[in-house]
Amino acid sequence: MNQLQRALDALVERIDTPAPIVLVDVMQGNIDRMQGFADQHNIKVRPHVKTHKCVEIGRRQIEAGAVGITAGNVGEAEVFAAAGFDDIFLAYPIWAAGSKKPRIRRLAESVRLRVGVDNVAAIEALADAMGDEPDRLQVVIEVDCGARRSGAPPELAGDLALAARKRGLVPAGVFTYPGHGCLGRDARRRAAQDQEAALATAVRSLEGVGVTAEVVSAGSTPTVEFSTSSSVITEIRPGEYVFGDLNNARLGACAEDQIALFVAGTVVSDWVPDQVIVDVGNKALSKEGSPEIGYGGIAGTKAVLSKVNEYHGFLPLPDGDFRPSVGSVVPVVPNHVCPVVLGFEELIVSDSTGMSLERWPVDARGFLN
Amino acid sequence: MNQLQRALDALVERIDTPAPIVLVDVMQGNIDRMQGFADQHNIKVRPHVKTHKCVEIGRRQIEAGAVGITAGNVGEAEVFAAAGFDDIFLAYPIWAAGSKKPRIRRLAESVRLRVGVDNVAAIEALADAMGDEPDRLQVVIEVDCGARRSGAPPELAGDLALAARKRGLVPAGVFTYPGHGCLGRDARRRAAQDQEAALATAVRSLEGVGVTAEVVSAGSTPTVEFSTSSSVITEIRPGEYVFGDLNNARLGACAEDQIALFVAGTVVSDWVPDQVIVDVGNKALSKEGSPEIGYGGIAGTKAVLSKVNEYHGFLPLPDGDFRPSVGSVVPVVPNHVCPVVLGFEELIVSDSTGMSLERWPVDARGFLN
Repeated sequence: MNQLQRALDALVERIDTPAPIVLVDVMQGNIDRMQGFADQHNIKVRPHVKTHKCVEIGRRQIEAGAVGITAGNVGEAEVFAAAGFDDIFLAYPIWAAGSKKPRIRRLAESVRLRVGVDNVAAIEALADAMGDEPDRLQVVIEVDCGARRSGAPPELAGDLALAARKRGLVPAGVFTYPGHGCLGRDARRRAAQDQEAALATAVRSLEGVGVTAEVVSAGSTPTVEFSTSSSVITEIRPGEYVFGDLNNARLGACAEDQIALFVAGTVVSDWVPDQVIVDVGNKALSKEGSPEIGYGGIAGTKAVLSKVNEYHGFLPLPDGDFRPSVGSVVPVVPNHVCPVVLGFEELIVSDSTGMSLERWPVDARGFLN
Repeated sequence: MNQLQRALDALVERIDTPAPIVLVDVMQGNIDRMQGFADQHNIKVRPHVKTHKCVEIGRRQIEAGAVGITAGNVGEAEVFAAAGFDDIFLAYPIWAAGSKKPRIRRLAESVRLRVGVDNVAAIEALADAMGDEPDRLQVVIEVDCGARRSGAPPELAGDLALAARKRGLVPAGVFTYPGHGCLGRDARRRAAQDQEAALATAVRSLEGVGVTAEVVSAGSTPTVEFSTSSSVITEIRPGEYVFGDLNNARLGACAEDQIALFVAGTVVSDWVPDQVIVDVGNKALSKEGSPEIGYGGIAGTKAVLSKVNEYHGFLPLPDGDFRPSVGSVVPVVPNHVCPVVLGFEELIVSDSTGMSLERWPVDARGFLN
């Protein structure tokens, strides 16, 4: 990850810390690699925008070949729809109530909108929201593959598809999220197998009631590599791959030199022996980590934040040459990259040389419902 | 905390979830109680705006008697200065580099600005930033009282004050943060004693070099109650008291019925036995908690989130009557309230009746540097 420090050295005079820095060449490599992998396996890519919430990055994903985007809530979908994205999957068991009803209907009238459902009550609420045009909305049945989060049992997918069709909604297929595959390569492989099995069951369940699954949609960055051409999966919804992070590097789901985002932080205090304080705390990084793995690491070193307060990161210094003085600027690599976009208005975009500098807004940052 | 559920029941048709709800009467009670306590002990209140980042709430704190505000970074100070706040303490060991130099100077020219320092290099950088008007900037020496975060040893405060004066900056006093007092009432009391001792030492250190400490500034919501009229402390910088949260309730630093902010969340899925999924995840709450205490609780129940993904909160249902169905809206009380303002553009403000509804912008939300 020394490229992060090199880029930072070139950028440092032009940024105020803390600042999220994106190396666009590394990011573009991630986008192209994922697309290439999917193309090779004849699978479509529908990236999850939760990781970047940035229209410009979404455009690059589409330009590389993505068929559309995945959003986590109505507000994200609205921002990207307004920016011209016309194929959006809200991969979440949406509950249509209050002003979400007209919001969902407006979205469905302006883009090809698919939304997740996992129960009949939610189907009824969505149909009510669509009024006399329920066929403008496609629903994708969420099934559980072992994460025990949302999602119906796969064998009940057909019943839900029928319930949707009965109300005039268009059942388009099935999706799942293998969120139990986060503990090493074997666990990821098993989660990918669970995912495949659950989706295959769900597809058969749909076929059993006469519904064709146009889309069979799978997560996620850590399980993508186990997808194969013979899979039932038609599309994947990876999010984190675009930037990568320490969690994905630990999982083996990205290489360290594929990490494209870091937070530049300044050392502001150094009174405690063998420890410095940086201005990167949980308002920048969120509190992602544990006392065991720390809360973020310094690129190119073994140093990790041992604790984060809101504006302070505690950085014990391991034995060795890394002795940053007060005023030094260091690249902090997040454990989990997705929360970083919440706290900043813009991404500082450069490349591995650190020569260029653009600012891309985090367009969908505040849209949490 | 049943008042939260009652207010929510009245509000539910008018909000989209997840949404941060502030009960303004409860919040005003918190503001008035803190001010009353401080007045009684002849201590000034300078609330930390990190908790709300909201100009309207800052105004109410000033109207109640606060002498000014505390900010955590230059961006927050700029937002509140632009809104008319004219007495701002940046209680952080600021490092003046890049565009922060002119930003700090502009702030110091427009409001009474105090900034924290804990080392000579930072003093030099600030003096450089102030150019030919260093006396427009007051510095407050940060000393450590046991948190082992930032802050010089208290007995060296005088040396730093002299270094500041030598460069034409105005040494205004000392401050500390008793961040080690977060584990029960006894620990809070001991932290408060450490704070008092460190500040007394620092004041003597200043007097030893002929500098009068105009301000002797102390944290924080959990230690405030141990302040006394005979203390060396002249002002306190509590932040979280304005809303309260489960962490402060566990510490005994607020009562449960003094919690003024919760996040309204909708139950979106209920396939796993004795568990529901709510649309309040770590993008709304941050990941504050642990498997032991959970990641947020439902007001008026024993239910706590066992896990948070980005848009999903996992809510196991304890034995009893609390069996919310899909579509139910529940009040999620954060463990730590401060990160909540990061994810939302506005606070939904009502009162305990749930009848009124205003929307207050989170003005300083994105200003992280």
